[in-house]
Amino acid sequence: MLIAVIGSGSVGCLYGARLARAGHDVHFLMRRDLEAVRRNGLMIHSCDGDFRLQAKAYGGSAEIGVVDLVVCALKTTAIDSAEPLIRPCVGARTRILALMNGLGIEEKLARWFEPERILGGLAFVCINRGEPGVIYHTDHGRVTFGHMLGDHSQAQELADLFASAGFKTGVPPSLKQARWEKLMWNVPFNSLAITAGGATTDRILADAGLSELARRLMREVAAAGNADGCTIDAETMVEKMMSNTATMSAYKPSMLIDYERRLPLEADAILGEPVRRARQHGVPVPTMDAQYYLTDFLDRLNRQV
Amino acid sequence: MLIAVIGSGSVGCLYGARLARAGHDVHFLMRRDLEAVRRNGLMIHSCDGDFRLQAKAYGGSAEIGVVDLVVCALKTTAIDSAEPLIRPCVGARTRILALMNGLGIEEKLARWFEPERILGGLAFVCINRGEPGVIYHTDHGRVTFGHMLGDHSQAQELADLFASAGFKTGVPPSLKQARWEKLMWNVPFNSLAITAGGATTDRILADAGLSELARRLMREVAAAGNADGCTIDAETMVEKMMSNTATMSAYKPSMLIDYERRLPLEADAILGEPVRRARQHGVPVPTMDAQYYLTDFLDRLNRQV
Repeated sequence: MLIAVIGSGSVGCLYGARLARAGHDVHFLMRRDLEAVRRNGLMIHSCDGDFRLQAKAYGGSAEIGVVDLVVCALKTTAIDSAEPLIRPCVGARTRILALMNGLGIEEKLARWFEPERILGGLAFVCINRGEPGVIYHTDHGRVTFGHMLGDHSQAQELADLFASAGFKTGVPPSLKQARWEKLMWNVPFNSLAITAGGATTDRILADAGLSELARRLMREVAAAGNADGCTIDAETMVEKMMSNTATMSAYKPSMLIDYERRLPLEADAILGEPVRRARQHGVPVPTMDAQYYLTDFLDRLNRQV
Repeated sequence: MLIAVIGSGSVGCLYGARLARAGHDVHFLMRRDLEAVRRNGLMIHSCDGDFRLQAKAYGGSAEIGVVDLVVCALKTTAIDSAEPLIRPCVGARTRILALMNGLGIEEKLARWFEPERILGGLAFVCINRGEPGVIYHTDHGRVTFGHMLGDHSQAQELADLFASAGFKTGVPPSLKQARWEKLMWNVPFNSLAITAGGATTDRILADAGLSELARRLMREVAAAGNADGCTIDAETMVEKMMSNTATMSAYKPSMLIDYERRLPLEADAILGEPVRRARQHGVPVPTMDAQYYLTDFLDRLNRQV
């Protein structure tokens, strides 16, 4: 399959590189890492086995041209300017996979592209970017898919595609619910890492107060999600999230890595949009509100904007 | 009047020095500033006029001996070890004034001393410690008094005493309510200064999210206080607190000053005790809970304990 990876951060590089290794024709749109990858290829240090890929790296989407599948793995902070990056790769039969965290992602892409061709993907993966052209994949990797309009066969095709690259995959009944459930991890651990002074997941779990806040945030996310049309079994998910997180040891959530590099945080997609939906549905989310306001302030303070 | 100031931080030094200047015989128990004050006296830079006092400074309470009035101005983090500092100054007729922030202060002193002799004082003052022996009093100074068992005549005597030193004073109907109302300022501005990365009061007021959190914290404190027996008009107090704070420009709450110096924060008296009382009364205080857990964690992280 002819694939364009738009936004070659750690997620785009890992999944794109594994698809390429599996025989697909993958083209990477790169910015920061372009020169390094052209020189040395893409180095994947992975719990599934290290490998180097002579990746096809480009500085502009027009050089890539029309593909079968666009894997959009931009940071959510860049979503509003995604159209010109994606458009040159889109032909009559192109599908677009938003392999991104947060809420409201597919809806944003649907401002520019037909919803029939839009899918969402959620990566459950512990991964960090290292020096340019180097990715550290430390744990997990499962990825699940959903079609924006609920076309399960399209979602299953992508699940099969990623399975061919050696990943566990799944097609949950509802993409929306999958996104809300993933927020049950992303909201607490990303935001507490920021407001608790850089705390990694192990520090959060080990502290009685912070882990209580994590549980409250999870319950608030579940309540907002259920008001938004999901059927999340909150307490079961809370326990699952907490025990899964305990296997991660001292994991740095992506928001903390961005914060340390003084990059914009994905606060709006991960906290702001869920807070707004909760408000629309009249669901009180006081802990999430507090985390959102604090994280948003600390983000701006950190970048002096 | 023969007075011992136990705990000569900025509050103890300012009020003690003004009482001494007004002709009272004031003895200061000092630790950090002892040598500097013995050498150079106590320098008060004040919005009410600068002055230097050749303060009577001591390293131990036994050297001071029995007094008419103990002004206990310790940090609340030191309250559990206050008894041996106060005891040598207490005779049959000695009164003890807890000139400290937070909740449950008089109750702690009453573990060791008769409640008949215990009063509480609340200082509404913008004040910082500078180099040893130097105090910066930048604004306000009003102080209000209440007796632990409600003896208003004793409270009025202290109000008259402090008025003789040039301060505005008052005797509110209820010491408990006065403490809860003061928490309506201390909880939001102290804790947000910590969790919002060192934000001074002006930054908090200028930010829509942080000032919303400040208002929520005030309302939660008022609700907890009312459940605890007070009759606080929450919205009136919120508006009063917000507009008073706007006059303070870029004020650093005491908790932030302690944090920057890596000293223990008064998190338990200012946040922990109100949170526990709210819980006893079944009043939800989710924003205060979050601020308490985060502040307590950041305090320990900051001191690596």
